[in-house]
Amino acid sequence: MSYTGLIEVMGRVNDFLNAGSVLSWDARVMMPKGGSATRSKQLSTLAVAARNLLCSDEAKRALGGAEKDVAGKPEDSAEARMVAQVREAIDYHERIPAELLRRKTELGSEAHDVWAEARRKAEFPIFADALTQMVEINREMAQAIGYEDHPYDALMYRFEPGTTKKGLDTLFAQLREGMLPLVRAIAEADAPRSDFLYRDYPEDQQMAFALKMAEKIGYDLDRGRLDLTVHPFEVSFTRNDVRITTRVARDFMQMSLFGALHEAGHAMYEQSVDPAYTRTPLATDLISLYAVGGVSFGAHESQSRLWENHVGRSRAFWENHMDDIRAAHPGLLDDVTTEEFYRAINKSEPSFIRVEADELTYDFHVMLRCELEAKLVDGSLEVKDLPEAWNAGMKEYLGVDVPDDAKGVLQDVHWSSGQIGTFCNYTVGNIMAAQLFETATTEDSAIQAGLDAADYTPLREWLNSNVAQHGRRFTRDELLEKATGRPLDPKPYLAYLTQKYSEIYSLA
Amino acid sequence: MSYTGLIEVMGRVNDFLNAGSVLSWDARVMMPKGGSATRSKQLSTLAVAARNLLCSDEAKRALGGAEKDVAGKPEDSAEARMVAQVREAIDYHERIPAELLRRKTELGSEAHDVWAEARRKAEFPIFADALTQMVEINREMAQAIGYEDHPYDALMYRFEPGTTKKGLDTLFAQLREGMLPLVRAIAEADAPRSDFLYRDYPEDQQMAFALKMAEKIGYDLDRGRLDLTVHPFEVSFTRNDVRITTRVARDFMQMSLFGALHEAGHAMYEQSVDPAYTRTPLATDLISLYAVGGVSFGAHESQSRLWENHVGRSRAFWENHMDDIRAAHPGLLDDVTTEEFYRAINKSEPSFIRVEADELTYDFHVMLRCELEAKLVDGSLEVKDLPEAWNAGMKEYLGVDVPDDAKGVLQDVHWSSGQIGTFCNYTVGNIMAAQLFETATTEDSAIQAGLDAADYTPLREWLNSNVAQHGRRFTRDELLEKATGRPLDPKPYLAYLTQKYSEIYSLA
Repeated sequence: MSYTGLIEVMGRVNDFLNAGSVLSWDARVMMPKGGSATRSKQLSTLAVAARNLLCSDEAKRALGGAEKDVAGKPEDSAEARMVAQVREAIDYHERIPAELLRRKTELGSEAHDVWAEARRKAEFPIFADALTQMVEINREMAQAIGYEDHPYDALMYRFEPGTTKKGLDTLFAQLREGMLPLVRAIAEADAPRSDFLYRDYPEDQQMAFALKMAEKIGYDLDRGRLDLTVHPFEVSFTRNDVRITTRVARDFMQMSLFGALHEAGHAMYEQSVDPAYTRTPLATDLISLYAVGGVSFGAHESQSRLWENHVGRSRAFWENHMDDIRAAHPGLLDDVTTEEFYRAINKSEPSFIRVEADELTYDFHVMLRCELEAKLVDGSLEVKDLPEAWNAGMKEYLGVDVPDDAKGVLQDVHWSSGQIGTFCNYTVGNIMAAQLFETATTEDSAIQAGLDAADYTPLREWLNSNVAQHGRRFTRDELLEKATGRPLDPKPYLAYLTQKYSEIYSLA
Repeated sequence: MSYTGLIEVMGRVNDFLNAGSVLSWDARVMMPKGGSATRSKQLSTLAVAARNLLCSDEAKRALGGAEKDVAGKPEDSAEARMVAQVREAIDYHERIPAELLRRKTELGSEAHDVWAEARRKAEFPIFADALTQMVEINREMAQAIGYEDHPYDALMYRFEPGTTKKGLDTLFAQLREGMLPLVRAIAEADAPRSDFLYRDYPEDQQMAFALKMAEKIGYDLDRGRLDLTVHPFEVSFTRNDVRITTRVARDFMQMSLFGALHEAGHAMYEQSVDPAYTRTPLATDLISLYAVGGVSFGAHESQSRLWENHVGRSRAFWENHMDDIRAAHPGLLDDVTTEEFYRAINKSEPSFIRVEADELTYDFHVMLRCELEAKLVDGSLEVKDLPEAWNAGMKEYLGVDVPDDAKGVLQDVHWSSGQIGTFCNYTVGNIMAAQLFETATTEDSAIQAGLDAADYTPLREWLNSNVAQHGRRFTRDELLEKATGRPLDPKPYLAYLTQKYSEIYSLA
């Protein structure tokens, strides 16, 4: 009875969080600009209501009883895990003052508009005050949460539990060792033809094709929709309503398409969580206070990157869909072979913008952000010096000179909503995607055969059965252990990149 | 201090209600169909949270102190009224069990889809079960709220405080006495030409023109937006984000235009409430638990009907905008004079659909609904017998034979969301619109001069100053007393209809 009571209370926590997600989606996709100030108060009230209900006497009373109810269950049963996660979350949030959470949410909504204006005008100083406040709030959060080694660890815990600054330093060193030789060799090699990606592709044709491909790989539109935004994102309001957005540039066609495939990858994760987990802690991140079923932000990213890159940027995909994209854009791709198209969408070249970066240079964008965030948080870097540090880092890693703040330090939406400590998830996701994809295709030959025949069901079912269906029942590394026999391991990722780029660029 | 505390708590009540409004708007305008089941739980959680916070110990403690704080203020000061309204609302809601409210909200969201399906298939039985449950819930509500004379009075209190079945019977008799002679005389007269309203008007042209006209009369798009839905509506999420929808039929052009003008009238009311009242009880209906600044649903309707009919269907309006509508629909109105257009959009003819009815027959649709609702609620009519009673009533009042349930008993969205007792508001709105418009144009000659010159600012400013700015500070009849010197009075409405239709139809 106490267990049932706990699940009922957590259902209402999930409702508040999902309501907040609807209001956030609306704020980014639909809201007239006048709505911003009061919307931030509404979001704050919902976040505080969720947090307070989670930590309420009502929840604690039910939790005490529920712990007794599940005492005989296996430690990794759904029931035992739900109860344990509620206990962990209450302990976590009681360390964070409610007032700090309220300030963060209110600032987050207002800062988004400030960031958008700063980005439009390419003027970092417009955003500097808001970011300074956001960094300070995050430093207070880190102190309240507690950490062993570095305050950044406390912040990353919200997004990728168990990740530490120290661990990242090691991982990043491994990646650099494996990837820098490729980057350097490619700089010396002949670039594939890619002129045709920059032709004038009508926006409605791009959106229609992006939606068609998202649906083709398995995104369920009866429980989703695609809209247009400045920054693409996915958001779920339970598995039954999972929305994605993408963005369109007339003269950079691949952005809308791969944006949609990427977000569809996220969306299929949420759409495929066990229906029995709907509104339970196994479909609610009670630490980050997002109503998501994915077990970590990195695990989420593994699904988006897998569908975007291992599927969407594969040769097999375009052997199957080259005619479709030609038909979607009449006359614009008639002079392009499938092989030329495949090579063009996999062209590697240092660039300014993370979300437009190719697979090989992408992780360098991530490393720079993690480094700078850690320094902002430990106080060794001030916000006013951030653009200079950013530009210096871009020069060091990728050899490029950032022309302005919009193409530099202002490009990402994350900081505007107070998210510090999340960028590592992108690289964790890349590594995890390769690890899962290698195991899936090795384990079951029907999967690659499916991909070769434009049948995405076998791969989707493998991913659903090994990842998505479990929701938040297992940790990221437990999922990886079960699915691949080992925790996070960068070797398959490095092997994949080496094989793919050596072939495209005819490297030794 | 207690007063400030009370306003802070009521701000959070307003946030929950506004969040619910965003989720409702999204459910009607944007949501994929899969989202319906969990959305209803989210709406229920928000409604219960608002109600529970309103009636919480925290609110009551603050209220007790606030009553002392405002003891020296004039009874009709904003502060005193806020406090009094919180007291009244707590008393009201404590009479209604929370569980009943939860059932109503949950059923309301699910029943909307059932109603939509029934309407699409024109099959009342599909909706009968849900409606039966909804009537039963409303009967329980009426008993819980309490009433002196008739249970319907208890339900109307939510929407139009002070209205009684007895009062309506008198009012409706006055209207029938004044209006039936007109309806009968028009049936004998020659109908104006109206063929051109039913040409094939492209939907995007209709939407663009509807939006242009809504903006022209004063709807602020920086704090609003227009979308397309099956049933037009307006909803506000504070005065800073007030959205409208309309519907489009290619072969019935006036629907989209007058739908948009009507909803823009509602929207301008909300957009013009005193900004100081944002998130306070003077912009929150704590009885109906809607986050609106309008003082009653009838007062709201007075603004929409005034802009739709007294402005949008006036000769002056089309003398100014005939060229605009011709330009909006190239080639489609070249053979139509301004006078012909004016007469066509004011053609009176008995019809099946309330929202498509002309001004003169509209109130008969309302009378029928109020009569049937009162009978459902007092048990003298069963849901299964409703279509027959509906069709008989349409025959009696308007002389028409209803061809199917979609054009009959299933046409309105209201019952699907549990709203019983609201239809009287439409007729109250018609009467109040005429009363306000007569006073405004009599009092200040600049208003009619403005309308004659397509300058809608003088009228809008008069309405803002006499109605909208006050939010919920004064009751509907207090507003009318202040603005027109008397409470609700059907004479100006009957005079307006008589003058307008006698002229158009050359009646004696």
